[in-house]
Amino acid sequence: MLDNKFQPQIQQRIDQKTKPLGALGVMESLAAQLALIQSQGLDHAVEKIAINKPTVVVFAGDHGIADEGVSIAPSAVTQQMVINFLNGGAGVNCFCRANDVEMFVVDAGILFPVDMDAPNFIRQRIGERTNNFAKQAAMTVQQAEQGIEMGKSFVTSLIKQGSNLVMFGEMGIANTSSAAAILAALTDLDVEQCVGLGTGINPEQYAKKLALVTQGVVRCKGLSPIEVLAEVGGFEIAQIVGGFLAAAEQGVAVIVDGFIVSAAAYIAILINPTCREFMIFAHQSDESGHKLLLAEMQAQPLLQLGLRLGEGTGAVLSVALIRSAAEFYNSMASFAEAGVTV
Amino acid sequence: MLDNKFQPQIQQRIDQKTKPLGALGVMESLAAQLALIQSQGLDHAVEKIAINKPTVVVFAGDHGIADEGVSIAPSAVTQQMVINFLNGGAGVNCFCRANDVEMFVVDAGILFPVDMDAPNFIRQRIGERTNNFAKQAAMTVQQAEQGIEMGKSFVTSLIKQGSNLVMFGEMGIANTSSAAAILAALTDLDVEQCVGLGTGINPEQYAKKLALVTQGVVRCKGLSPIEVLAEVGGFEIAQIVGGFLAAAEQGVAVIVDGFIVSAAAYIAILINPTCREFMIFAHQSDESGHKLLLAEMQAQPLLQLGLRLGEGTGAVLSVALIRSAAEFYNSMASFAEAGVTV
Repeated sequence: MLDNKFQPQIQQRIDQKTKPLGALGVMESLAAQLALIQSQGLDHAVEKIAINKPTVVVFAGDHGIADEGVSIAPSAVTQQMVINFLNGGAGVNCFCRANDVEMFVVDAGILFPVDMDAPNFIRQRIGERTNNFAKQAAMTVQQAEQGIEMGKSFVTSLIKQGSNLVMFGEMGIANTSSAAAILAALTDLDVEQCVGLGTGINPEQYAKKLALVTQGVVRCKGLSPIEVLAEVGGFEIAQIVGGFLAAAEQGVAVIVDGFIVSAAAYIAILINPTCREFMIFAHQSDESGHKLLLAEMQAQPLLQLGLRLGEGTGAVLSVALIRSAAEFYNSMASFAEAGVTV
Repeated sequence: MLDNKFQPQIQQRIDQKTKPLGALGVMESLAAQLALIQSQGLDHAVEKIAINKPTVVVFAGDHGIADEGVSIAPSAVTQQMVINFLNGGAGVNCFCRANDVEMFVVDAGILFPVDMDAPNFIRQRIGERTNNFAKQAAMTVQQAEQGIEMGKSFVTSLIKQGSNLVMFGEMGIANTSSAAAILAALTDLDVEQCVGLGTGINPEQYAKKLALVTQGVVRCKGLSPIEVLAEVGGFEIAQIVGGFLAAAEQGVAVIVDGFIVSAAAYIAILINPTCREFMIFAHQSDESGHKLLLAEMQAQPLLQLGLRLGEGTGAVLSVALIRSAAEFYNSMASFAEAGVTV
């Protein structure tokens, strides 16, 4: 766990800024979290929070359960969207440009591979796509572990190359079914509470999705988090779990996006509880299970913008708030410095 | 009012982007509002939203009612904070640096004038400070009108110099009392609903604040918005009203910050209802009257960060979302462009 010894020093620094106590609300807790993370191993609290090369990694993977019609779109769209990411045309690309965030795309196992070379495109495929988890395990435990290692390895390399703020997005037709199943399998929640409308299915599709997810969840009784990941997860989710583990191991802050990324975050926390301390929660989506999942992690996201696109869009939109929190910690005057006499 | 004829064309453009319908939530309505504003007078909807020189103007003014002890700080702090703004040490300065926003400071009438020259410091004082509105009119109607003209003139010049996104902050010890009084005077709400704890007063101070605000509000019966502004407003509030009128006249988007700025926005809307269409609401503060005031304006702010500092901090923190909305409108691929087959 993080060493809290500088926490009072950090809080004092924030409280001496020229503002009423607590008047910057969640910006203050955000600054305190960043400062505590970056003070680890030092002999005093950091005076400056550094935000270096914020980077989003969008992991893409396909899901056998998509064949059941649980999503509004077929698996072919996963490939088309990966191409869209590489061409700079997707929502997350736009938000990266507007917020000075770097972006990588990882093929973690999509049904139709993309034949494009790009410096920000990484192929580390665990397989062609997962099995239909309504009928059988989505992947083997070995594949889940391999996926975690792949994600961990890539994110570790990003951090070693200078990024100290990472975030993950995902693309994978039908992957809200996996997220819902993970949530139901690893908590006391009912499957009904965990399954939502995804990007927009109708009531009939919803009933079907609920039944299919339940079939996967019933096989998860008594399984470990990694076994649950194998049973009902996805290749992109496995690699994102590895990404969270890497951030904690390397000691850098990591932004948690929407429902699917949050499901991966939850698994990472169950594997290594320290992961939670490095997480900044970006956005609360409208997906029904997401609120419950955030509550399980005692998380209060920075933004509530009604996003339901995935891709890491919420995470990228939170970066300006993180930079702003760092800047106020770094350079807002104290009462003494400014000669303010409150 | 805005000409809505391009609204369907704008919505169609947004709906053809590579995302499920509505999946970018409030980012979509934000983009639509900006596009509609910037399409006025053209013969087709804009293809690109331009965000040029976002600029915050922080208006400072002192309040006679501060002598009654309704605030945690004395009027001297208004001067000290103006100096802090000019030295770059306040919260809003930090957020401006982190978000590439320009900043101006206007002395609209503070008790202890600041003897500093800075290119971003404007002196347009309506007076030394307002009268104690618990006992008499804060200012004359002529002063209120003069203040509106001053604010309008300065903001018009900013826009003519190239800013097409303006926002206003405020500094003025005791000015939540004015905001609460304006809200109570111009709506059907009870004074109790409108008066809050400001930046942090105790229950005894609260009871006193309530009684004092009520004394001002009872004089406002049947008065026009500008007369209410004169009776219980502030010099900074008058100039902010002018700023909102300028934005609407010049046809540019304007960001509404917290409780005090929202009170000015409300007066501007009552003077010229078209003002509402140019307003983007940044932040919902914890100040009790602010939610009610936002509801009067049918406003749903972008952020809920628990800020209660004023200064325009909430507005500046919303700029990255506005830039992001523009970028997705401008450059997110359509289904046809990206070859996505949903």
